[in-house]
Amino acid sequence: MKRVVMKFGGSSVATIEKIKKVAEILKRRKNGMNDIVCVVSAMGDTTDELLSLAGALSKNPSRRELDMLLATGEMVSASLLAIALNEIGEKAIALNGAQAGFEVKGRYGFAKVVDVNTSRIERELSEDNIVIVTGFQGMNSKEDFSTLGRGGSDTSAVAIASKLGVDCEIYTDVDGIYTVDPRFHSEAKKLSKVFYDEAMEMAHLGAKIIDPRSVEIAKKYGIRIYVALNSANVLGTYIGEENVEESIISNLSVQDNILLVKKTLRNESVAELFLNLAKEDVNIDIISKMDTEGKTLVRFTSVVDERDLIEKVADDFEFVENVSKVSIIGNAMRNQPGVAARVFDLLNSNGINFHGLSTSEISISIIVDTLVKEKVMSLLIREFEL
Amino acid sequence: MKRVVMKFGGSSVATIEKIKKVAEILKRRKNGMNDIVCVVSAMGDTTDELLSLAGALSKNPSRRELDMLLATGEMVSASLLAIALNEIGEKAIALNGAQAGFEVKGRYGFAKVVDVNTSRIERELSEDNIVIVTGFQGMNSKEDFSTLGRGGSDTSAVAIASKLGVDCEIYTDVDGIYTVDPRFHSEAKKLSKVFYDEAMEMAHLGAKIIDPRSVEIAKKYGIRIYVALNSANVLGTYIGEENVEESIISNLSVQDNILLVKKTLRNESVAELFLNLAKEDVNIDIISKMDTEGKTLVRFTSVVDERDLIEKVADDFEFVENVSKVSIIGNAMRNQPGVAARVFDLLNSNGINFHGLSTSEISISIIVDTLVKEKVMSLLIREFEL
Repeated sequence: MKRVVMKFGGSSVATIEKIKKVAEILKRRKNGMNDIVCVVSAMGDTTDELLSLAGALSKNPSRRELDMLLATGEMVSASLLAIALNEIGEKAIALNGAQAGFEVKGRYGFAKVVDVNTSRIERELSEDNIVIVTGFQGMNSKEDFSTLGRGGSDTSAVAIASKLGVDCEIYTDVDGIYTVDPRFHSEAKKLSKVFYDEAMEMAHLGAKIIDPRSVEIAKKYGIRIYVALNSANVLGTYIGEENVEESIISNLSVQDNILLVKKTLRNESVAELFLNLAKEDVNIDIISKMDTEGKTLVRFTSVVDERDLIEKVADDFEFVENVSKVSIIGNAMRNQPGVAARVFDLLNSNGINFHGLSTSEISISIIVDTLVKEKVMSLLIREFEL
Repeated sequence: MKRVVMKFGGSSVATIEKIKKVAEILKRRKNGMNDIVCVVSAMGDTTDELLSLAGALSKNPSRRELDMLLATGEMVSASLLAIALNEIGEKAIALNGAQAGFEVKGRYGFAKVVDVNTSRIERELSEDNIVIVTGFQGMNSKEDFSTLGRGGSDTSAVAIASKLGVDCEIYTDVDGIYTVDPRFHSEAKKLSKVFYDEAMEMAHLGAKIIDPRSVEIAKKYGIRIYVALNSANVLGTYIGEENVEESIISNLSVQDNILLVKKTLRNESVAELFLNLAKEDVNIDIISKMDTEGKTLVRFTSVVDERDLIEKVADDFEFVENVSKVSIIGNAMRNQPGVAARVFDLLNSNGINFHGLSTSEISISIIVDTLVKEKVMSLLIREFEL
C-alpha cells in the first residue's frame, strides 16, 4: 500500500457537514489503496473560543493550563472525524499528540517537536485503520500537554510524514502558493512548484500559507509537501527539491505587527543583551548595531506580542509599533547580483523611508511603517513583474 | 497541612462566573491550611453537547472515539478552574485522568478504576499546588482514554481520597440525602448521616445523589463522604461507618427505564445464558427463574439502554419497557423482620400488580409499570413515614 499523510486545517473541519466531506475524501483515497494518516486542526474557531473562555478568567493565563485547554480542540475534531469514517464503513482511530508519539520541548504554546515515536501509528496502520492524529500538540518530558503554536498542525503533519518517509499533503483554504497574496494583488500568479528554501523564506517573511518549521523538516528529510484546496479539483503547489532556475523573484510576502525595539547599551555587552533576551525565549528577527560617541545603539525587530517578554529584560527599551516587513524572495537571486541595489533605488526614487533591512541569499526584507506598506508592495510588484 | 478531596459537579462549573465562585471556595479552604485535590466534571451540558455532535455523525458511534471526545469536557473545565485560581493568586495545576494516574479497565464508557497512581498528585501537592483533576476518565492499558460512565466523577474523587486516606466532599446541586427525593415529596426529611450500605443501596436502587461504586470504594478504604450544596452554608449529609441504629426505613428511591426481559430456555442452561450475557457486559439486576411443564422460564431486569447488547445474545427474548423499580432502604431493616410482609400487604390491599421483587438485608425493591410508580411511592411514604 502506498502511504500518505494528509492534513486538513480548521476551516476544512469547521462543521459536522465539512467533517463528513473530509471523511469522504479520505475514504476515496483509502480505496485508491493508500494507507492514510490524517492530521487535523481544531474545528473552525474552536481555538479562539477556548482562548476567549480563558481570557474571561485571566488577562495572562498560565501557558501550561492554556495548552491543556487548547489541546482539547483537536481531540474533538479528530474523534469526530474517526466517528464519521466508521459511519461510512472505514476503520479509523483517533490519536492525540501523546498517543501519536509527539515528544516536544520548549515553552508552552511554542513547543518544538523533538521526535515522533511512530510505533503506535505504525501499529494502527497495520491493523488497516485510517489514523487520525490531532495536530498542533505533543507531550513534554513532564508528561504535560504542549502546543506548537499557530500553524503547528502543518509541523505535526510534516513531522509524521518525515518519520514515515512519505509525502505530505496540506489541504487548506487557498489553492496553492502565489507570487503575491491574491487578496492584495488580483493578478498574482500561482506557482506550480517552489523550492524548500523559497517556501521557508516566504513563510518566515510573512506568507501565511505554511508554517516555516514544517518546510525545514521536509527539507531535512527530503519529503515533498503539496499545498492545495480541500476540494482537490484545482492543482496546487509542490514544495520540493531545487532543480531548475526560474525568474529572479518568485514571491512577495508581508508581515504586519512588527515591533521595532531600540536600546542604548551602557554597562552591558551586546552579547549579554541577546543572551538575556534568549533566556526569555524572545523571538528576534533583524538586528543592527551602531557605535557612536562612545555609546552602542542596538536595534532589533520582534513582534508586538513579545513586548511583555522583552520588558522583563530591561526597562529602558524604546518601542516602535505599527511597523511592517515587506519581503521579496526568489531562489535565482543567488546568481543575480544587483537586486538589492534595484530595491534601494526604487525606494529612494519614490521617497520611501525604511527603518531597517535584511538580506539573505535568496531574499530581501524591508522594515517600513505600516502606513506605507501598500505603496512599497505596489512598487515591488511592478518592478519585479510579480 | 490537613488534606481534603473536593468534587464539584457540572452544574457547579457551568459558566465562567460559577468557575470563579468555585475558585473562591477553594482559595478559602486552602487558606484554612488545607492541601486540596479538586475533582471536576465537565461544564454544564458539555457532555450532552459533545454527544449530540457525535450523534449527528453516527447513530452508534464507536465507544472508543466517543470516550476520547467526552474526555475533553473535563479537560476544559479543569484547565479553566486552574486558570481562575492562578488569577486570584493561588498556585494550581490541572491534570487529566492519565496525568492524575487513573488506570482503568473494562468497556469504553463504563470503565472501572483499577488503581490511582497518586505520585504526580503527591508531587504537585508538595509544591503547594491546588491540584485540579478531571473526573470521569482514566487511561486503559492500551493508553486510550476511557470514561467511567455517568456519575463517574464521584468515583474519581472517592478513589483519590481513598488512596490519600482522606475524606471526600462532594458538592452538588442538592443539599444532602433525603428520605425521599424532595421533588416527589415536599415533606421529605434530610438525613444528617447515612451508612455506607444504605447509601450504596440507595444509589443502586435509583437515588441519583451519588454513584454507588464510589460509596463501595469509600467503605473499603474507610473514608467518609460528605454530600452538600456548593454554597456550603447548609449542612449536608455524611456517609460513613455504622454506629447507631435509627428508624427502620431511611430512604425511598426510584429508578425508571427498567427493561424487563423474558426468555424460555430450550437447549441451553441458565448458566450458559448468563455467561453469554456477561460476555457482552450486559448490566443485569434482578433475576428470577421458573420451571414449568418441562420448560424453564427466565426473567431478569436490565436498563432500556442495554437492549441492543442483549439482542446480540439471542433473538427470542421478550422485552417489556416502561417499567420502574421502587425501593425502600434502611440499615435497621436487618433486625426488623416483617418489613417485606408489610410491603406485600400494602400492595395487595391497594390492588397493585408487580412484575418482580428483590430483597437484600437492608432493602426491598419492587418492579412495577411506570404508570403506577407514583401511587406505589405515596403508599410507601405513608406506611413508613418517610
